[in-house]
Amino acid sequence: MTERLILHEYSQSGNCYKIRLTAALLGVPIERREYDIMQGETRTPEFLATVNPNGRIPVLQAGARFIPESNAACFYLAEGGALVPADRFERADMLRWMFFEQYHHEPNIATLRFWLAFVGAEQLDPLQRAMLPGKKQAGEAALKLMDDHLARQSFFVGESLSLADVALYAYTHVAGDGGFDLADYPAVTSWLRRIEATPGYVPMSA
Amino acid sequence: MTERLILHEYSQSGNCYKIRLTAALLGVPIERREYDIMQGETRTPEFLATVNPNGRIPVLQAGARFIPESNAACFYLAEGGALVPADRFERADMLRWMFFEQYHHEPNIATLRFWLAFVGAEQLDPLQRAMLPGKKQAGEAALKLMDDHLARQSFFVGESLSLADVALYAYTHVAGDGGFDLADYPAVTSWLRRIEATPGYVPMSA
Repeated sequence: MTERLILHEYSQSGNCYKIRLTAALLGVPIERREYDIMQGETRTPEFLATVNPNGRIPVLQAGARFIPESNAACFYLAEGGALVPADRFERADMLRWMFFEQYHHEPNIATLRFWLAFVGAEQLDPLQRAMLPGKKQAGEAALKLMDDHLARQSFFVGESLSLADVALYAYTHVAGDGGFDLADYPAVTSWLRRIEATPGYVPMSA
Repeated sequence: MTERLILHEYSQSGNCYKIRLTAALLGVPIERREYDIMQGETRTPEFLATVNPNGRIPVLQAGARFIPESNAACFYLAEGGALVPADRFERADMLRWMFFEQYHHEPNIATLRFWLAFVGAEQLDPLQRAMLPGKKQAGEAALKLMDDHLARQSFFVGESLSLADVALYAYTHVAGDGGFDLADYPAVTSWLRRIEATPGYVPMSA
């Protein structure tokens, strides 16, 4: 890619990390611009008018154009390369797991992490507190489904790493912050180690 | 596509309708198999073992293989055709709106429709009732963002119909069932009519 790539991000967000990890695995350089979401820096009139009308990070800037939604940004970076399967069915299956991540995994596992480790349990409002058990249960169900799948194969789509793994890795490897015990999911734990052993891997803190 | 295609569905679900609409616009024949989700027919041991371990519809069966997650199934059907842009940025931008749909639109607009028009307001549990205002507000915000975008262009990605439009059409056109008033969103309303005028369009009831 010859255009300038800038990641508009909050570096502790798993959704932002996904894009950094994708770029690192591909060896594609990206610049980074940090926003303090706790201080509303993604809701300013300027951000809404130019970066993302939805007021959220991450957004990948490619030249003068912007791609919100983490998994779409990863797809933009990776299409045509080794992280996107060449087979039509497998490519759709990769997207299946990426949509699973945004619908069944992130709203439970990432939200509990944000509420418990960033906002703080004592700061939650009564509705958020009432939602904790349901999100815990749905997050455990997502991890169980992942564990069953990974007991039969090395990566989410067949036997090689794809964006499906990158997308699901981002919040799974820090699920402990949200009160999940990954020791309950041995196949998931082995898969985390396989990803971390991949050439080009960078940790969330990098 | 030469393989046999079977849609495992609950026909009143917008997520299932997306796949039928995609197939109809492409002129691809699909068989349909109906499940009564109210009676738990997608949670049977057989369904979980063969169709979808996540216990949900829609699932697109392609030959002997299965694709859960509605937007992944649409992508499988449409890739390489007129509903998926040929340009790399536009293809990622299409996925951006499809992820927006599953994260910001469907959990609010489709869930309110399900709760209010299918389950019934008086059958909701106290937590669901407490979640109504937040989902209403987030659903209105999604519609407002769509309306602002569609005030500037005919379809979500540039000037031609793509899967982004199909994905967002499915629950937007029945948002009234969830208590939303589409008269507040004139650009969305015009866009709905443009989709309905597209050759091959089929209504949800077909």
